[in-house]
Amino acid sequence: MPNETLTAAGFRAGAAAAGIKPSGALDVGVLVSETPCHAAAVFTSNRFCGAPVEVGREHVRNGRLRGVVVNSGVSNVATGRRGVADARAMCARLARHVGADFSEILPASTGLIGTFLPMAKVLAGIDAAAEALSSSTRAGRDFARAILTTDTRAKVSLRRVRIGARPVVVAGCCKGSGMIAPNMATMLAFLGTDAAISPPLLRRALRDAVAGSFNRVTVDECESTSDTVAILANGRSGAAAIREVTSPAFRRFAGALGEVCSELAYQIAADGEGATRVIEVAVRRAATPADAHDVARTVAVSPLFRTAVHGCDPNWGRIIQAIGTTRARFDPGRIVVRICGEAVFRRGRPVETADLAKVSRRMRAKDVPVVIDLAAGRADDRVLTCDLTKGYITINAEYHT
Amino acid sequence: MPNETLTAAGFRAGAAAAGIKPSGALDVGVLVSETPCHAAAVFTSNRFCGAPVEVGREHVRNGRLRGVVVNSGVSNVATGRRGVADARAMCARLARHVGADFSEILPASTGLIGTFLPMAKVLAGIDAAAEALSSSTRAGRDFARAILTTDTRAKVSLRRVRIGARPVVVAGCCKGSGMIAPNMATMLAFLGTDAAISPPLLRRALRDAVAGSFNRVTVDECESTSDTVAILANGRSGAAAIREVTSPAFRRFAGALGEVCSELAYQIAADGEGATRVIEVAVRRAATPADAHDVARTVAVSPLFRTAVHGCDPNWGRIIQAIGTTRARFDPGRIVVRICGEAVFRRGRPVETADLAKVSRRMRAKDVPVVIDLAAGRADDRVLTCDLTKGYITINAEYHT
Repeated sequence: MPNETLTAAGFRAGAAAAGIKPSGALDVGVLVSETPCHAAAVFTSNRFCGAPVEVGREHVRNGRLRGVVVNSGVSNVATGRRGVADARAMCARLARHVGADFSEILPASTGLIGTFLPMAKVLAGIDAAAEALSSSTRAGRDFARAILTTDTRAKVSLRRVRIGARPVVVAGCCKGSGMIAPNMATMLAFLGTDAAISPPLLRRALRDAVAGSFNRVTVDECESTSDTVAILANGRSGAAAIREVTSPAFRRFAGALGEVCSELAYQIAADGEGATRVIEVAVRRAATPADAHDVARTVAVSPLFRTAVHGCDPNWGRIIQAIGTTRARFDPGRIVVRICGEAVFRRGRPVETADLAKVSRRMRAKDVPVVIDLAAGRADDRVLTCDLTKGYITINAEYHT
Repeated sequence: MPNETLTAAGFRAGAAAAGIKPSGALDVGVLVSETPCHAAAVFTSNRFCGAPVEVGREHVRNGRLRGVVVNSGVSNVATGRRGVADARAMCARLARHVGADFSEILPASTGLIGTFLPMAKVLAGIDAAAEALSSSTRAGRDFARAILTTDTRAKVSLRRVRIGARPVVVAGCCKGSGMIAPNMATMLAFLGTDAAISPPLLRRALRDAVAGSFNRVTVDECESTSDTVAILANGRSGAAAIREVTSPAFRRFAGALGEVCSELAYQIAADGEGATRVIEVAVRRAATPADAHDVARTVAVSPLFRTAVHGCDPNWGRIIQAIGTTRARFDPGRIVVRICGEAVFRRGRPVETADLAKVSRRMRAKDVPVVIDLAAGRADDRVLTCDLTKGYITINAEYHT
């Protein structure tokens, strides 16, 4: 899939290899709009948060941004006041290139924690990336690569949607959970749209999209100190402004944004450390939305369940064991569990007629759907995860050596 | 360490290889007191629970038992009414051998779930184990082995304590989390004492001991459908009866029981699937006991943290990341994190002078202590876990093939 982030009108991107990553790979990326944007962002709720998150929260508060500056390799976490000053300096450097105020730039960093940014390299990298600013597909692709750490591939998505008579583009890229010892996962996503939409509506659409996508993925249930999802809307499509949350235009825009975020979230699960399969745990007919989410997440995070999927083992036992630890309302005698479309557990008992060998063969596919019918109400939910493999252990236990 | 379970006066044990396990290993164990006992038990809180748990709850309700009958290989979980009848039949068979009522026997099963017990084998095994009943050390050791599944070794512990002028023995054995696909972990522990103590006091002592030991261990945070901890007290030591919860005698007895349970819990962590190290996560000076427990458990279950320990990586980042996701009260700028005795994080920053290479070398030891000082109050807690290794993946993804 090509990175078409820049198909949204009026955006330009650039990247540079600044030498922050020892590998020499791209490690500074900038994304700017030619004109001022309305903006919204969602950040980690981890109480230890990085300096860029602190600065980013300030800069996006008024709902206006011109661009984003990102480095990978060093995360600027646990760096105190100097870290905050460094994050501001990154913003100021990009702002100078594009004629904006430093407070119109959102900063993000991912990589090693507890280390100060090598600011000489970072600032030179921002200069180089700003020099390279372009609306070409290649520039967008480079930006998507510059934000990666242990990801094995760039992650991009795009949707076109009509607002009034005009096509509007919602595009984005993200990076998934990757760790370089001694540090932690970071999830970053940057989205651009040429829709015209007010900051409150943009915030609402982003919050809903994140809730249904990035917040429905778990690789190892470890929320990072740097997670950031930001969207910039420059209105350059020429489409009429989206003004009402009840309007068809908002619904269409929010739908497209939700799809882009879901596609990016899927790519994060698929590129989870060591992952060989994407698992969707869907819960149906829970008594409440909270119950549905609780059951889906409890099953999805179970290492026993995730290793069973890795072994193509249709292990309903590990699923009901996980369900049984939740406080969700259900009657154990009414639950139905389906793996890859086959009912394997029903009415408190394994399904004697289930062809487990066939299910096991189906589990070799890249996508493994699990459906849990709680028969307790009307609420549905789903959580994506990936299988737990020796690759995860290798990456996280041995990477630092 | 020899199994000295039978050092408590008046207890006898027996075991048999009944052919339930394909390996031909011991798979039926019986433990009985020559005389009636006061008894207490704690069971899984998983809402899917095995038939033996259902029957065991009934049998221990009046605080009286004569013995325990256990099989490994098949867990009698998700087996409906027939499973309940089978569990009762196991009790009746042992009861007949020892001249007791079937309701005086506590049943337990561990192994494959969703399969009916092969009752002909099980009952013949109970007969053989009852024939073998003996107060010898060897008989106790065989019982401890007969309850194992994927454990790599028997787990036993014993304490002697004076009640009045008399020595009293508290002894026990347990099995840890082990899975045989398609099934799940089961934690079983059986304790015997020759102390004289009323059922309510025994219940109180057991509840407290379990809270501080078995409930402070997590291998993969997967609570099984069969977890059972039971204690039988036959009063055969001749020591004065323990009558008051405020008495020194109760405190000494409860202290000994707590130590036995803690020693058994430690052995479970040490024999966790694939484990090469035991990790103790201790939290100091939390605002509340709940905060202390929350932080200790959140760090202990983190797969990122557990793989870092496996790699001897003094990764304070993964520890503070986990702490940051809790709702515990603390000031990020006051937390101190120590790994193997060395402060590695303090006042919101890594400790520049910490010798991480030295810490990494210390982490090669079998025991890795992590201390988190929240500087927010007076509550302490600790949770034991083990490192997360490729062995865990192998056992749980590939065991069934």
